[in-house]
Amino acid sequence: MFMQTLPGFRDFLPEDCAKRNYIFARWREVARRYGFVEWEGPLLETVELYKKKSGAEIVDQLFNFTDKGEREVALRPELTPTLARVVAAHEREFKKPLKWFSIGQFFRYEKQQRGRLREHFQLNCDIIGEAALAADIELVALCIDVLRAFGFTERDFVVRISDREFWTDFLRERNVPADRWDEFLQAIDKFGREPREKTAEKLDNLAEPVFATLKSGGKSEKLGKLVDALRGRGLADFVAIDIGIVRGLAYYTGIVFEVFDRAGKFRAIAGGGRYDNLIAQLSDGAVSLPALGFAMGDVVLGELINEIPHAREAMQEAITIDRKIDIYVVIAKEERRADALTQVQQLRDLGYGVDYPLTPTKIPKQFQTAEDLGATIAILYGDEWPQVKIKNMATAQQELLPHDRLLAHLQALPSLSS
Amino acid sequence: MFMQTLPGFRDFLPEDCAKRNYIFARWREVARRYGFVEWEGPLLETVELYKKKSGAEIVDQLFNFTDKGEREVALRPELTPTLARVVAAHEREFKKPLKWFSIGQFFRYEKQQRGRLREHFQLNCDIIGEAALAADIELVALCIDVLRAFGFTERDFVVRISDREFWTDFLRERNVPADRWDEFLQAIDKFGREPREKTAEKLDNLAEPVFATLKSGGKSEKLGKLVDALRGRGLADFVAIDIGIVRGLAYYTGIVFEVFDRAGKFRAIAGGGRYDNLIAQLSDGAVSLPALGFAMGDVVLGELINEIPHAREAMQEAITIDRKIDIYVVIAKEERRADALTQVQQLRDLGYGVDYPLTPTKIPKQFQTAEDLGATIAILYGDEWPQVKIKNMATAQQELLPHDRLLAHLQALPSLSS
Repeated sequence: MFMQTLPGFRDFLPEDCAKRNYIFARWREVARRYGFVEWEGPLLETVELYKKKSGAEIVDQLFNFTDKGEREVALRPELTPTLARVVAAHEREFKKPLKWFSIGQFFRYEKQQRGRLREHFQLNCDIIGEAALAADIELVALCIDVLRAFGFTERDFVVRISDREFWTDFLRERNVPADRWDEFLQAIDKFGREPREKTAEKLDNLAEPVFATLKSGGKSEKLGKLVDALRGRGLADFVAIDIGIVRGLAYYTGIVFEVFDRAGKFRAIAGGGRYDNLIAQLSDGAVSLPALGFAMGDVVLGELINEIPHAREAMQEAITIDRKIDIYVVIAKEERRADALTQVQQLRDLGYGVDYPLTPTKIPKQFQTAEDLGATIAILYGDEWPQVKIKNMATAQQELLPHDRLLAHLQALPSLSS
Repeated sequence: MFMQTLPGFRDFLPEDCAKRNYIFARWREVARRYGFVEWEGPLLETVELYKKKSGAEIVDQLFNFTDKGEREVALRPELTPTLARVVAAHEREFKKPLKWFSIGQFFRYEKQQRGRLREHFQLNCDIIGEAALAADIELVALCIDVLRAFGFTERDFVVRISDREFWTDFLRERNVPADRWDEFLQAIDKFGREPREKTAEKLDNLAEPVFATLKSGGKSEKLGKLVDALRGRGLADFVAIDIGIVRGLAYYTGIVFEVFDRAGKFRAIAGGGRYDNLIAQLSDGAVSLPALGFAMGDVVLGELINEIPHAREAMQEAITIDRKIDIYVVIAKEERRADALTQVQQLRDLGYGVDYPLTPTKIPKQFQTAEDLGATIAILYGDEWPQVKIKNMATAQQELLPHDRLLAHLQALPSLSS
């Protein structure tokens, strides 16, 4: 009991943490390429913020509680309400459109299942203040490029794109009152995931035309333009129009998309879309800005990286290189420890990663540690003093050098770049 | 109300987030130089874990609650209990000593005051499985070098070092029973922070000898060795022996230290020490390993960076450079938008940070945005097509180039390194 995490939570041992950081680094790097800037919100917010967006049912899925100041608070289940809050409070300080991304942890009290824990990390990318389709295109391209950065190709994943407006137009033409649209959209969203009869029952006399549309595929000029634009960027093979994608959340207003592995083995890797009314809704009309965004979690993404050999190998290679140490200092004579440590300090000041044995250790064991740590070179302090012996760990070549020329020598080595 | 965070919590707008990331990057970089590897624990743990370490009073300061599965849980107030749990569960998988660091968020339900919020980020660095003083020296040196990485010098901060064993020896010699040591250590810890009479009352007949020792400074061979070793590394000017440092937490067993700004304006910047019995205590004796560590929070550190001009300027310079975009694409003719976007994609694939106007925009405004974003170059797509105009934003020099030679040209530019 003591030894374990709470159910659905993870410890990140060094290997796990390196994988997590690998994911974060790629998320951050590609967002930066797209000119997105990073921000972050608090992990705890008022329950009210989530109720306002998603209704009272959301509370069943929250880690919520009453704090010692009698506030109803919750560990954040998603970032969008916080984003709306922050943008509404600060929008005048920034030129539009905002292109913001964030990497952080989120929490849901849910039944545990594959690819779904009670916490996960998410990349959130949002564009605020731009109504044009160009923003949707930019966002989908970013989502694709984030996944390409892990080595995934168009054979590994697909972005299924749809348009909520296609369905709201469809319902309007059939004189369905606007206050019942959500109910129909939810039913269409569940098509294929629940028995056909159940969906048919919910859709009532619209079941036939909906099923026919889902079968034939809907026509949407907007979706055509979006795919054409992605084709111009060489990204068309990564997307498919799938009018059956509606997304469960009520607040989407236009283009929506979900990303799946091609083999159909995992849950959605990412999802998002346009939510033009949400900021106004959450700020009680104080601020109204068109907006769109997507989120990508680390858990399903991690499973897909493990599944696809070239992505897994790219990750392993990156984290192996990242964890290598530059220099291992071998203390062959304890009389030389103080001299060695003076140089350890100088080497670290130059930015090298340097390790050494804290206590007297047999020389072969020290070299073994140097190898285990992936040291590029070992420097031996022993009988040769005031010379030191430098060993290239890859080639096993050794050379002797006066200790006072060591720093200059290392800074000229191409294999060591700090 | 809706517009604000919960009291004691922070939104990190892009500028704040860049400062936070600047701190994280230096923490991570220096820990890496010392051969420490990163790990991370969960944000939520059982309340039991904290009670076990710190007694039932700790609960008053926790964000704790009963989850939907009837578990008593808390947002973590510190990392050490999680570290002890993880090490006890996994120690056989790793060679000792472990040198682990972690960067994460922590929570305390406290009265808000300067330098103390209800959440903060902390760097935690720990060495597990090494009893020798060499580990204490390494840890203190790391703490000093982490602060030096922000540009602080020995004129800006001091590490006050003490030894709990000095005081436990002192109490043993005076026949104070071991079960009362904590009580006396707490009283000594509070010296100077509460009225002298109050401390005297608590210390009873030991008040005189304690006050005399605090005045004269205690002698400790171990502390002498530690300072000598730091002198060998050129770090002696950063430390001062201060036998009055005891640290409030009961679990420290040897060397303890706290870091303060020289001007004495702020709360402690960092603190830590040796806790050789804690892992055994928390694991009910299953695993016993000597251990030591320190933690440094982002809030007081951030205040000190703002206070010391050269540290503040170093941060501003780093975040300004970090937020610059490489290339701004100016779309001077809308007919050229598709061509421009094809190249935007290629440039981003090469790793450049690239931005462009999502919608038709006047040319001067586009150049203004290029300047605001700190673009190194602007590339103009207009009447010159199939040539493009490249403008060096620093020198205002312009040149024309066939668009199909653009990528090769940019990759050869020394001012653009992706």
